[in-house]
Amino acid sequence: MSQSILLLSSSRAGDTPYLSHALPMLEKIMPPGSRWLFIPYAGVSISYDDYHQKVVEAIGGLGCQLVSAHETPDPVAALEEVDGVIVGGGNTFHLLHELYRHGLVDAIRDKVNNGMPYIGWSAGSNVAGKTIRTTNDMPIIEPPSFDALGLVPFQVNPHYTDYQPPGHNGETRADRLREFTCVDPLSPVIGICEGSAIRRQGDALVLLGDLEAYLFEGTTQKQPIAPGSDISFLL
Amino acid sequence: MSQSILLLSSSRAGDTPYLSHALPMLEKIMPPGSRWLFIPYAGVSISYDDYHQKVVEAIGGLGCQLVSAHETPDPVAALEEVDGVIVGGGNTFHLLHELYRHGLVDAIRDKVNNGMPYIGWSAGSNVAGKTIRTTNDMPIIEPPSFDALGLVPFQVNPHYTDYQPPGHNGETRADRLREFTCVDPLSPVIGICEGSAIRRQGDALVLLGDLEAYLFEGTTQKQPIAPGSDISFLL
Repeated sequence: MSQSILLLSSSRAGDTPYLSHALPMLEKIMPPGSRWLFIPYAGVSISYDDYHQKVVEAIGGLGCQLVSAHETPDPVAALEEVDGVIVGGGNTFHLLHELYRHGLVDAIRDKVNNGMPYIGWSAGSNVAGKTIRTTNDMPIIEPPSFDALGLVPFQVNPHYTDYQPPGHNGETRADRLREFTCVDPLSPVIGICEGSAIRRQGDALVLLGDLEAYLFEGTTQKQPIAPGSDISFLL
Repeated sequence: MSQSILLLSSSRAGDTPYLSHALPMLEKIMPPGSRWLFIPYAGVSISYDDYHQKVVEAIGGLGCQLVSAHETPDPVAALEEVDGVIVGGGNTFHLLHELYRHGLVDAIRDKVNNGMPYIGWSAGSNVAGKTIRTTNDMPIIEPPSFDALGLVPFQVNPHYTDYQPPGHNGETRADRLREFTCVDPLSPVIGICEGSAIRRQGDALVLLGDLEAYLFEGTTQKQPIAPGSDISFLL
């Protein structure tokens, strides 16, 4: 079976309600009655119970069932009982740290490569890439490795923006990703704006949403990708 | 001999010239004729030659000599030939990766704990803390450990700001540091604004500059510290 993967940039687009912009994309993948394992580990300042509840409330109208990994005695075993896995945003380092601690990195990768649908947003999209080396998050905890699930053979940069606070001396996102391409010119990075998503179905990859994405790879810097583009060349 | 450490938030304050705001602080520590080892490893998209030259031009008026680590066959041996070490900003992960690769983590720590003056800004201030877990930088390369020089027994967060781009859904800096205190409530973090600095002289620690800094520790969140405050309680 081929991969079915949806990587959302963010849980919100502008000031729309939590995950509401994602519902049209989610309903194509999450049929009524389907069972999903929710991974809350990116949540740090929210309890896992509250995080689970928040997601259930946001997407409950789709009629699927969400079991949270933190409620199961053995999350790896729980993967055997569900139709898909859905990974929420928050802190990418904390998420990957906990995925390793629970033995979920290999387990999720195996399942998804054998056809189990994967949905992630923000940190949940970062960990779907080759490594977490293009996350925007603070490294508040040290995971055993930066190597991530590798469900797509490139790097994801969610929440893409080049906005720079007036008078502040820091790098823009494009500066940061250019530095990444300096130290690793062989790993492509795709920056996706809030509201956008990447959809993989086997050997096909497409950019969803209304906004451009941006490709960084070697000397290619911030090359625009039009909304709706076929970007299967990245696979 | 007691420690002599100056940790600057940034290389610029507002749109003043490179390192110009720092000159009054630097001249108290860098007497004319003194020899310094410059560490350029945080530079990623600038060549080490250019970085070295840029710093020499900015602070050359002080009349000291700057040898860059990248020009020496053995940077650890070069430490024996200088009066102090000065560590520039850029990418914190790249800086720490290279400090480990060249065996400089233990070497610099030993020297500074035995009285060799240390000056850093931005990434150079991050690595002076216990760990790099409160850097704002992108993790473009994986260092062997997040443990850093530990020249001060707390975490530094340079370029402190709570500015949030309008319409963007990301964490503020205060949110990010609160998450750090959730996973590690025992490690204090001090956020220093651009233009500010921390000065350690043995058992005395003071906040330099015109702006407040902010302390995060456990349930203490964004507690303001007045400019000029004695903050030796953090040692």
